[in-house]
Amino acid sequence: MFLTTLCYMEKEGRYLMLHRTKKEKDINKDKWIGVGGKFEDKESPEDCLLREVKEETGLTLKDYRFRGIITFITDRYETEYMHLYSAYDWEGDMISCDEGDLEWLDMQAVFDLQIWEGDKIFFWLMQHDAPFFSLRLEYVGDTLVSYALNGQYVRAEKGENLFEKFKALY
Amino acid sequence: MFLTTLCYMEKEGRYLMLHRTKKEKDINKDKWIGVGGKFEDKESPEDCLLREVKEETGLTLKDYRFRGIITFITDRYETEYMHLYSAYDWEGDMISCDEGDLEWLDMQAVFDLQIWEGDKIFFWLMQHDAPFFSLRLEYVGDTLVSYALNGQYVRAEKGENLFEKFKALY
Repeated sequence: MFLTTLCYMEKEGRYLMLHRTKKEKDINKDKWIGVGGKFEDKESPEDCLLREVKEETGLTLKDYRFRGIITFITDRYETEYMHLYSAYDWEGDMISCDEGDLEWLDMQAVFDLQIWEGDKIFFWLMQHDAPFFSLRLEYVGDTLVSYALNGQYVRAEKGENLFEKFKALY
Repeated sequence: MFLTTLCYMEKEGRYLMLHRTKKEKDINKDKWIGVGGKFEDKESPEDCLLREVKEETGLTLKDYRFRGIITFITDRYETEYMHLYSAYDWEGDMISCDEGDLEWLDMQAVFDLQIWEGDKIFFWLMQHDAPFFSLRLEYVGDTLVSYALNGQYVRAEKGENLFEKFKALY
């Protein structure tokens, strides 16, 4: 079990995203994700958020919002509790990141990137201004087999796309 | 580091609270707290919430709300991440709890009980209908030496009561 933060910085309809190409052993190898990382000892979610954003981008967040917690279950890795933030204002000068390439990407374009299927659910929730949510995502290999939003479970029937099902049910 | 849920069930202006008298080795020995407990493997916060409430009270929650996360730092114990819920509706028959005595206590009376000083901050936030919050509480012994609400740190000056300071600043 481990705890992480994940932050999507927003500017003019774009997210700052990291193309994870630089680390050899990386659960997110070649995937696009926000900035963030693991909690260190005695850190609150916000302590971790501010430290990780500073380390990866050089920027200091001035305005952010805690959007939700994602319980990320797989058959291959330990359970991860991701603390998801949006950020709207910051100061400082951007540096290059040693974990991948930072790029500003259109907020709509993320649905077509190589990302985890369940990430589309939380992008959709963030973009629809959902109140704070708890989202449990369960994967077998790279396939999302169930999600639970605020405790309500939805499972994939054979061949069903769970993101499409989520949008129809929300 | 460990993760827990803590639930305050509300009925007619009262909370269901547990007087922790039965376990010999208990960080909360003789203190009054809500129901809840540690996450088990692959549990989301809501999975843990529903299981713990069922185990300790016999009841199945029907309506609940995720109120906040409390990062609980001490000089004596591992860091605890408490996932705090209010609950408003449930079904089933109440059982007795093997960790202490369950009692319905007036919501205002909690401020005068033997509870952790920082608990008064989150009771106050819950009772004032605060939006989802992240609260970091740091103790040295039984003394609350700082709190951070949504990343904003406040430290106790000599002899200062942090709950009084919190109310003045909020």
